Amino acid sequence: MIKQFDESSYTWDGVDTLVYKQDGSPFKDVTRQVLFNGAKDIPCQFRYFEVKPGGYSTLERHDHTHMVMIFRGHGQVLLDDKVTDIKVGDFIEIPSRMVHQFRANKGDYVGFLCLVNLDRDKVQVLQPDEIEAMKAKNDVVKAFLESC
Amino acid sequence: MIKQFDESSYTWDGVDTLVYKQDGSPFKDVTRQVLFNGAKDIPCQFRYFEVKPGGYSTLERHDHTHMVMIFRGHGQVLLDDKVTDIKVGDFIEIPSRMVHQFRANKGDYVGFLCLVNLDRDKVQVLQPDEIEAMKAKNDVVKAFLESC
Repeated sequence: MIKQFDESSYTWDGVDTLVYKQDGSPFKDVTRQVLFNGAKDIPCQFRYFEVKPGGYSTLERHDHTHMVMIFRGHGQVLLDDKVTDIKVGDFIEIPSRMVHQFRANKGDYVGFLCLVNLDRDKVQVLQPDEIEAMKAKNDVVKAFLESC
Repeated sequence: MIKQFDESSYTWDGVDTLVYKQDGSPFKDVTRQVLFNGAKDIPCQFRYFEVKPGGYSTLERHDHTHMVMIFRGHGQVLLDDKVTDIKVGDFIEIPSRMVHQFRANKGDYVGFLCLVNLDRDKVQVLQPDEIEAMKAKNDVVKAFLESC
């Protein structure tokens, strides 16, 4: 029932670490560990994502809700037209259809816990014209997107 | 969308801290903060419970599942007939009907994140004869229960 955490490696006993491929897909240096894969009365998956220093998650939107808590390090999150610094403990609810992306600071990891429904729609990656429209929102978003 | 965490007080921006009454009920020095109260596709509540040094949660069972992650400090958890040391990051799934109790070390807090379904049965507190039956399971459980 207990999956012990190893603080030296940010891994959990008996949990596989999935390393994303670095093949030109729109994320960089991200790993995923599935800590919980649902119970009869909790139809949700709880995952730990880790972004290496300077890395970032996919710029995406989808119908399903994300419930996120930062668990390691420092970085920024883009939510629609705002960029906010994030640190351990910060709690983020990302509603349906909101564009979002996580980025680790250059010298630091950012790791986050993320809860989703087991039954969810596929992630939609933003297209080039949508990214240009995002950049046009304000200079902070533009600088964020150009750094990824 | 973001509830910022204050690491000096273990509180979140805009989240109330509920202090349990110390009126002889079977828990000691426990607070609760509700970080997430469900979304259309996530029918769950996500809470942060904090047990002060030397305090403990209720010795309880219920039909609903708990998904727990330790977020602060050190202590022990009783799960059925086993007592296990717990520290930040440890992940615990408590299945339906399993008797459980959390205890903080004498010199340390224990804080944990706990996910449950929004629609769940009431907690059942163990009765004196059930507690005696628990103590008879083994010396470790007996010592744990007699320290609370």
